[in-house]
Order: sequence, then structure tokens, then C-alpha cells
Amino acid sequence: MADIVIIGSGNLATHLSKGMKLAGHKIRQVYSRDRQHALSLAMAVDAEAITSLDEVTLNAELYLISVSDNAIGQVIAGLPRDLQGIVAHTSGSTPLDVFRGQPWAYGVFYPLQTFSKTKSVDFKQIPMAIEGQNESVTEQIKAWAITLSDRVFICDSKQRLALHVAAVFACNFSNHLYAVAEKLLIQNDLSYDLIKPLIWETAQKAMIFSPSEVQTGPAVRNDHQTMQKHLLFLKENSDLAALYETISQLITKRT
Amino acid sequence: MADIVIIGSGNLATHLSKGMKLAGHKIRQVYSRDRQHALSLAMAVDAEAITSLDEVTLNAELYLISVSDNAIGQVIAGLPRDLQGIVAHTSGSTPLDVFRGQPWAYGVFYPLQTFSKTKSVDFKQIPMAIEGQNESVTEQIKAWAITLSDRVFICDSKQRLALHVAAVFACNFSNHLYAVAEKLLIQNDLSYDLIKPLIWETAQKAMIFSPSEVQTGPAVRNDHQTMQKHLLFLKENSDLAALYETISQLITKRT
Repeated sequence: MADIVIIGSGNLATHLSKGMKLAGHKIRQVYSRDRQHALSLAMAVDAEAITSLDEVTLNAELYLISVSDNAIGQVIAGLPRDLQGIVAHTSGSTPLDVFRGQPWAYGVFYPLQTFSKTKSVDFKQIPMAIEGQNESVTEQIKAWAITLSDRVFICDSKQRLALHVAAVFACNFSNHLYAVAEKLLIQNDLSYDLIKPLIWETAQKAMIFSPSEVQTGPAVRNDHQTMQKHLLFLKENSDLAALYETISQLITKRT
Repeated sequence: MADIVIIGSGNLATHLSKGMKLAGHKIRQVYSRDRQHALSLAMAVDAEAITSLDEVTLNAELYLISVSDNAIGQVIAGLPRDLQGIVAHTSGSTPLDVFRGQPWAYGVFYPLQTFSKTKSVDFKQIPMAIEGQNESVTEQIKAWAITLSDRVFICDSKQRLALHVAAVFACNFSNHLYAVAEKLLIQNDLSYDLIKPLIWETAQKAMIFSPSEVQTGPAVRNDHQTMQKHLLFLKENSDLAALYETISQLITKRT
């Protein structure tokens, strides 16, 4: 079990620190520039709240940088030079070499999941992509990661970026399509609830089958008549009509 | 309980006839131009197989036209003029007035779900959009529909088209995004399985929250640095890069 410092107080920092605490680790400190955020998360995980990187304790075992990607560089530059433990970021799209030239041992600890403040998650099922600057660091990070998740795997920075991009398509973009459906239903005096079973069934199919092999709908059938009806229906929503055409073409081309 | 003739033998016709039989109705006949298809479904639901519309029995109570949208007109033209029962199609994007001028009572019986041959579905949870040429026909169709589903509702043809378009976005297009993720993972020697918990969580969130209110990812955060990294990663896949930009812009604009 590790002594951990959490740098950050957003959704991921919150879920990670609660998850690590539940897994038996000790959260020593929580850092946020915003005192209120630091205090609130620190209280929840029984840690000290700090608002300056100078206050970071030197003798923790793991420093988890869980801030927005744009702020990782700043945090790295601001951390004390003489930290004893391993410093790891939790970002999908930031390569390991963001740490290059730093005096500490370093790595990556990336949970492939979407986190929101209002919904708890079961880390056991969350794939955890880890990377270390060398084998012994990788092994140490792995040992901590498996206390949290049953699905820990080692991957390099390019693969992690692929995962992150794939996640944007499968998660963020799918959610936007749900939101488009919601908007169309509400515009037509229909309840968003009506579409839920379909969303559910589609996701469930993706658990069992290869999505590329179970594609349905007018585009994969090359049913131009139906697509024309849909485009006509969307004529007042030119953005959505364009999106409809773009995705339909990709489906037809099987891209 | 009704005596039913099923016109068609595709996925929807198959699931509907099995569902109606399970609900206690009698499937009298199954029509398909393809003898083998007609026989195979007819056998499964204990019905007579027919391959010509001239053979359709005149005294059933419900004639369900469950063929591809493009073929509905032909089927209507080919059905005997002197049918006794109600003729209904099962299409989301075909208006009720496709029946205008026909001698029979007519309506629509549209289950909002995606069907595949290999996966059974629970009709009880499937929203069923119905429409009839007048109130008494609507009431009769509704009475049959509620034997199948707990979520029957009446809507007009324009609303049904909205449902169908919404379903294409939320279901067909989401599935395509899953397929994009699958492709990116495989291209990078990663298992498609890795993304499944994320797909699942995203769909689960859509059951509880309004999708437009729980959008996550770089686009909604206006995180240009991450989006640029992703676009660079996609530079060999120009179609996917274009799709990435299109959807990200819509999310940023909150369209």
C-alpha cells in the first residue's frame, strides 16, 4: 500500500483518490490551487489540503498528477525537485516523455473511463493503462494499479493516445449523438425516454458483437429513399443534415 | 387476440411474428417472395407460408406489412382489394398516407428498436408508436399493441419520422462510432474489449441524465490542445479526422 499525493481536484482526481483510499492506500495530501476544492476533496479522503506545490511532501510513494492536460507541464515544473516517490500523470493523450529530463522516477496511470461528479464508478472493471520510464517503475505502478482494477495493462504512449481517441469516438461523440436524438424528440413534442431502450440495446449489442459486423440502418442498406426522407426532415437543422450525410457516407463506405 | 398475416420475413417481421405469437395471437400466414424465407419463418410461428399476395387470406384481423420501406407501395398495390381486417405497416419513416385511397382500414404499428437475427428482444420494454386512419382503428391497433408492449403511444406520421431520425442518430450512428473505436484499437494492437466499459458507462449515463447536460471530452471543454493531438493522430485517416472535427464543432457550438 502506498502513501499518495493527489495533484488536482477535478472529476478524475476525485474518483481516483476515493478509489485508492478504498483500496487501502493512504492519501497524504490533496493539492488544488482552489482552496475550497482542495479542502473539500481532502476532507472526503482524510488528507491534508494544500494549495501550493511547494507544500508537497517529499516522502510519499506516488504523486498522481490528475489535472487538465494543458496544466500538466506547469505542475511538473512546479513540483519540488527532490521528491522521493514516483510521479505519474493520468492523461490519455499526454506522452510519457512530458517527464523527460525530470529528476524523479515517472510513469502514467490512465483509467479508461468517463467520470462525472454525480455518479460513482466501480474501478475493478475499468481498464487501467500504465506505463513507466523503465521496467522497475512499470512494475511498481502496476502493483499499485492492480489494487484498484482487475484490468491493468501496460501500453506505450502511442497506444494510449489511440485509446484516448477511440474513447472520444465511442463515448464523447456517442453521447453527443444521444443529445442530438434528445433534441429532435423534444422539438417534436416527444419524450427523450422513448429512445432509451434503443440506446441501451445498441450498447448491449456492442458488448457481445463486433460493432462493424452488426451495423444496421438505412446507410448500411444503401437505402437512399429513406436517407432522403431523413435529410428532408432535417432541412431546418443544416448542421444535423450535414452530420447525417457525413456519417451515412462513412457507413456506406465502411470506413 | 387477433388472427394475423405477416407480410415480410426480415428481422422485424421475424421478431414481430414471434412476439405476437408469444403474446397469444394467431399467425395465420407468412408472406415472402422467397419461398425458403417464407417457409422458415412460417414454421417458427406455426403459420402457412405463401409466396404470392393473391394467396393472402381475406378474413384475418390484422395484416402487418413488415418489408423494406421501398417495397411497401408494391405490397399495398398487390394486396387483395377485399381484405376484411386492418392493414398496418411497421415503418418509422413511411407516412400513414401511403395507404390513402385504399379500400381497407389502415394504420401503423412501429416498434422503436433495432433488431438483429441473432439476438432476441423483450417487446415489453419497446416503445410502440401507433397510428390509425381514425379513432376506432387507432383504438383497435392500440389494443393489439398493448398485448406486446407496456409502452404503446399514439403519434402522428411527422412525429414518427422524428423518432426514426432520432433512432438513426442514437443507434445506427452510435454503433458506427463504436466501430470507429474498434478500428482504431485494432490498428494499434489493442483489444476492442478495452473500450467496452466506456461504451457501457456512457449508455448507462444516458439512462439517468439528459445527454446534453452530461457531455464530457475535449470538445465541450474547448480543449484545443488535446483536439489538435487527436487530429494529428488521425492524420492518416482523413475521413475520421474530418468526422472528428465535425462532431467536435457541433459539441462546441452545442448544436
